[in-house]
Amino acid sequence: MAATITITTDFGLADGYVAAMKGAILSVNPSANIVDITHQIAPQNIKEAAFILSTVYRYFPRGTIHLAIIDPGVGTRRKAIILRTPVADFVAPDNGVLSYIVKDFSGNSNNADIPAPLVAVAISNPRYWRSPVSRTFHGRDIFAPVAAHLSLGLPPAEFGESITSVTILPLPVPRKSPDGTISGEVIHIDGFGNLITDITEQELPGGTPQIEIGNKIIKGISTGYRQSKGLLAYIGSSGYLEIAITEGNAAMSLGAGIGSKVRVREHVAADSA
Amino acid sequence: MAATITITTDFGLADGYVAAMKGAILSVNPSANIVDITHQIAPQNIKEAAFILSTVYRYFPRGTIHLAIIDPGVGTRRKAIILRTPVADFVAPDNGVLSYIVKDFSGNSNNADIPAPLVAVAISNPRYWRSPVSRTFHGRDIFAPVAAHLSLGLPPAEFGESITSVTILPLPVPRKSPDGTISGEVIHIDGFGNLITDITEQELPGGTPQIEIGNKIIKGISTGYRQSKGLLAYIGSSGYLEIAITEGNAAMSLGAGIGSKVRVREHVAADSA
Amino acid sequence: MAATITITTDFGLADGYVAAMKGAILSVNPSANIVDITHQIAPQNIKEAAFILSTVYRYFPRGTIHLAIIDPGVGTRRKAIILRTPVADFVAPDNGVLSYIVKDFSGNSNNADIPAPLVAVAISNPRYWRSPVSRTFHGRDIFAPVAAHLSLGLPPAEFGESITSVTILPLPVPRKSPDGTISGEVIHIDGFGNLITDITEQELPGGTPQIEIGNKIIKGISTGYRQSKGLLAYIGSSGYLEIAITEGNAAMSLGAGIGSKVRVREHVAADSA
Repeated sequence: MAATITITTDFGLADGYVAAMKGAILSVNPSANIVDITHQIAPQNIKEAAFILSTVYRYFPRGTIHLAIIDPGVGTRRKAIILRTPVADFVAPDNGVLSYIVKDFSGNSNNADIPAPLVAVAISNPRYWRSPVSRTFHGRDIFAPVAAHLSLGLPPAEFGESITSVTILPLPVPRKSPDGTISGEVIHIDGFGNLITDITEQELPGGTPQIEIGNKIIKGISTGYRQSKGLLAYIGSSGYLEIAITEGNAAMSLGAGIGSKVRVREHVAADSA
Repeated sequence: MAATITITTDFGLADGYVAAMKGAILSVNPSANIVDITHQIAPQNIKEAAFILSTVYRYFPRGTIHLAIIDPGVGTRRKAIILRTPVADFVAPDNGVLSYIVKDFSGNSNNADIPAPLVAVAISNPRYWRSPVSRTFHGRDIFAPVAAHLSLGLPPAEFGESITSVTILPLPVPRKSPDGTISGEVIHIDGFGNLITDITEQELPGGTPQIEIGNKIIKGISTGYRQSKGLLAYIGSSGYLEIAITEGNAAMSLGAGIGSKVRVREHVAADSA
Repeated sequence: MAATITITTDFGLADGYVAAMKGAILSVNPSANIVDITHQIAPQNIKEAAFILSTVYRYFPRGTIHLAIIDPGVGTRRKAIILRTPVADFVAPDNGVLSYIVKDFSGNSNNADIPAPLVAVAISNPRYWRSPVSRTFHGRDIFAPVAAHLSLGLPPAEFGESITSVTILPLPVPRKSPDGTISGEVIHIDGFGNLITDITEQELPGGTPQIEIGNKIIKGISTGYRQSKGLLAYIGSSGYLEIAITEGNAAMSLGAGIGSKVRVREHVAADSA
């Protein structure tokens, strides 16, 4: 059974960069099964890549290796790391692109320490790199061949020394005010214009929540796109509160973007008067 | 020999949705060979997906499974179906995305009945779904794992009850007037700006046809792009009459779009006078 | 071990053309491992495809077959060729798309003769084509099945007669003036807006080179993106001199495009006065 290796980058699809990485993988492990996550991360947007990777890795076979090459620091002294989890392995520059993964296991979005049973290694053993290593494309010359050797069954320790913490981005965390109002923000806008917030199902207030974005108010959580016509809120496929417009584009209609504020409070019926 | 599963969606390539489906497939059948048809169907454009799928399925190995996930009705009571044909299997929401496939076997573009030897099944057996099933992403939670289990050799009947008809879109059909003129329309514009019409080679009049679009007249059918400089008409690679501009973009030059009218009549030489 | 076949086209990703080629390959060799190089070559831009292919083929396993289908001459009498090299095989229309490959082995960018040990064949044996062959899509009907049969181990001679020369594009070559100044040009702009020039590391003058583009002057060659803030020059991952802006878009900032002139001269420190 072939090992699966996924690739996430900000390289776009018009150049040969992604293909060069795939060639480098297949040169080491010709039977690797390579799957693209996306190559349309905005240039150097580590946070976007971190989020998207966090929404897909659980759906791959156990032991899948995920390469995440958003690497504005290539050529500097930023570390290259392997992160092994019970679910999947990750190979990436140590720039925060694995923040959501670490949080998924530590439960704490500001903790850079590697929680058990995760293992992190700083890649340092050039034996598994292409030679020579270019100064601007470690994706091809270091990360891809390391992932390919890892897919052949080599243990992480073969690639370098263990480390106990990694770089963590400050991830958005919804705040809860004394009156129970949840204040969050839009963290991703998908290709349909749906707004994905940082508010999870567990954080929603009981009763019938009222969702506020800009000057719009949405009453209640729908159970799917068609439940309500027009603007609606629902728990999306990754477990986050999402705002959409049935057969429309919520981001464009609302003029919303990454960071737009979203508030959820328990709905109180207005007095008639 | 690995089973081939293709995927057609309107998800775009910037999100993780397509990758999540691939992960869900590989989690069931790690040796599935997954091929993208396209993920750039315009949002919710079932007809466009139906057309593109119809132009490619015959080129895949017999028994290939085609997933077509353009699913604006996800979360409503629209059915999910498997359609087995002698050429290929299809797994899709029952919203008309398989209209051209049914027509290819029934010969009638307005017949929703499943013609022999085709078999259609309404997917209902949750045993082969991911659990829990999200309300907005059946592509990942129902369609992908069903296709993967189907690729392992399970019979369609394992997934639900047989049905005798499916949803059919009204497909454009060229009309023939008493004087022999064929009136059709543009049904697809490809990435080169070539205009694909709904008029097939068999429907063309004898002699030297004259093709009219907007205020332009094209005399005769070329046998390839370079046969004539400038505007030309020819039978394209999917068997339809196409209009192109040699090394140019016909859609932009002619201001033509989906639905633009195209007429073909037998060319009559003008009297000199 | 599955044979790897790569595909480079100008078909874009919105149509079914690339998928039809993949289906045609898998119908001949179901275990072929198909990898996309890019399908976003500008329509009919043979030179761009030639360049991108030249930057990636060395990273694939030995014996990989590269299909390059930028084919404005489809339907004319342009030849279809197989080019076998010690590193890889290529299957393409004979329109110059393999110019960099031939140059890599001949060392001469204007030589159309096939240097030993390369072998070129003009594809003529219809036994390995789909039937019927459409007039506008030889990628699907001729090139893809030929590549697939080649991947099964058939020798190139099985597909047609040997030829001794192929079509070569005039590739840009940097000029060196008597005072040692190198005059080159931008030959590619990548997705980050980085400018890739035709000047290679070996051609750079000794000492501290000074790079000029438009009215900008860059002093010295950086060893990576972060070495200098702002505009910088460095040897890119394909061995060419590149110009970039750290975390910015050099093409947009400089208003530079394909063909923009770049000069490199030995830097002379200005007198203080």
